[in-house]
Amino acid sequence: MKFADIVQSADWKAEKHVPVIDAPATVKAGDKVAIEVGVGKEIAHPNTTEHHIRWIKLYFKPENGKFAYELASFEFNAHGESVEGPNKGPAYSEPFGKVVVKLGGSGTLLATAYCNIHGLWESSREIKVEA
Amino acid sequence: MKFADIVQSADWKAEKHVPVIDAPATVKAGDKVAIEVGVGKEIAHPNTTEHHIRWIKLYFKPENGKFAYELASFEFNAHGESVEGPNKGPAYSEPFGKVVVKLGGSGTLLATAYCNIHGLWESSREIKVEA
Amino acid sequence: MKFADIVQSADWKAEKHVPVIDAPATVKAGDKVAIEVGVGKEIAHPNTTEHHIRWIKLYFKPENGKFAYELASFEFNAHGESVEGPNKGPAYSEPFGKVVVKLGGSGTLLATAYCNIHGLWESSREIKVEA
Amino acid sequence: MKFADIVQSADWKAEKHVPVIDAPATVKAGDKVAIEVGVGKEIAHPNTTEHHIRWIKLYFKPENGKFAYELASFEFNAHGESVEGPNKGPAYSEPFGKVVVKLGGSGTLLATAYCNIHGLWESSREIKVEA
Ligand SMILES: [Fe+3]
Ligand SMILES: [Fe+3]
Ligand SMILES: [Fe+3]
Ligand SMILES: [Fe+3]
Repeated sequence: MKFADIVQSADWKAEKHVPVIDAPATVKAGDKVAIEVGVGKEIAHPNTTEHHIRWIKLYFKPENGKFAYELASFEFNAHGESVEGPNKGPAYSEPFGKVVVKLGGSGTLLATAYCNIHGLWESSREIKVEA
Repeated sequence: MKFADIVQSADWKAEKHVPVIDAPATVKAGDKVAIEVGVGKEIAHPNTTEHHIRWIKLYFKPENGKFAYELASFEFNAHGESVEGPNKGPAYSEPFGKVVVKLGGSGTLLATAYCNIHGLWESSREIKVEA
Repeated sequence: MKFADIVQSADWKAEKHVPVIDAPATVKAGDKVAIEVGVGKEIAHPNTTEHHIRWIKLYFKPENGKFAYELASFEFNAHGESVEGPNKGPAYSEPFGKVVVKLGGSGTLLATAYCNIHGLWESSREIKVEA
Repeated sequence: MKFADIVQSADWKAEKHVPVIDAPATVKAGDKVAIEVGVGKEIAHPNTTEHHIRWIKLYFKPENGKFAYELASFEFNAHGESVEGPNKGPAYSEPFGKVVVKLGGSGTLLATAYCNIHGLWESSREIKVEA
């Protein structure tokens, strides 16, 4: 079995698990650029002790390079857990993250998201970096 | 030795390692609220293959609760590494993260940040949650 | 509030949340040495969808150095979650981890563990490194 | 671009980046079973400030289930970094991890490993779980 067999993809407008990558289409090389990733942009995903998005990872594959880099990893760790029972706790983390990066060349941003009961989901988005 | 002995604190305006927590002073219970954490707000921290901020964690300690919750963990994983040598790579992740949370009561936000050569740093900030 | 205020400690023979560090008392500098960390060595901790140990982190504070290093971070991510409901899933991760390290000098190993409802716990252990 | 395009695979006897999964071929349902993952079993991978294995993740895809579960995530965070310069530090984490799991049915274990300059690598291994 290959890892590809367990990573699911779909249109994020129809499927609530797909991580959406928000980034400018074009940036300047070396400039600081904010990239946001989130699950449930169009259709909210549940956020309960029993069912939630646990993490999102963001990668960058340079056009002129063979290997991908992990830019950031976001873990969402509070989902209503409590000594008083599930969904009685005071804190919930929603599946949205932001990171600031500097890129030296064009390439592809790729995100993977993990739902604790629906497994792994992916998406990608081109980013053009001008010299 | 206690864990407290290895977590350093200081004024973030004078010390570049201290994680700054940006959050509203007062929020409504159950509302979605964005919290940003970052290192180097006033004085930039280096971001090189050899020296960088690796992660920031954000916790919430409810006023009316004994135990703290981890809200989110942010890892910054690209720091110019490359097969062509250190600081030749195309990607750098800056130490800034954002998460969206819902809180059920007042408490304290606490952040810890980890520099790969200067160790652990902390800060905290009150957040008032109105019913 | 300081981070120390939210990290709890106790005797691991009496308190099931305390992370136990298993390592040789003395090692040779530069030798590969296995270090195990675990929660619940004497008294098992629950492992359910609603209540479980989420992670353990292991640090090293050199005797002759000001700053601590993070050696490893272990996340335990499967706790019976399932589309069929909590505790119906096929997989449970127990809170035990092992890492192999090489150390260049004596110091202290420190572990922190996070229970999703009982928060943060710590312990430490000296390790002597002979030249 | 699909995530599969950035995850590399190869025979671990010939390629030092491939994560090796050590687990019994057959286990009893619900029994605690130790699973070890490691990179460089046959050919050691470098472990320097500039080039190292950053993490390994371990997943389980049940035969009778549509979605994969993340069992554990291991981060290796010390690679000789130091205020005295790269590779002068006192601590190195080798890319080996162990976790203890309980499984309820047969399936496939999958591991991904991340080298900070050579990107993502994968492998998998069947595990038979007897009632
Ligand atoms: Fe889901
Ligand atoms: Fe630093
Ligand atoms: Fe507990
Ligand atoms: Fe490599």
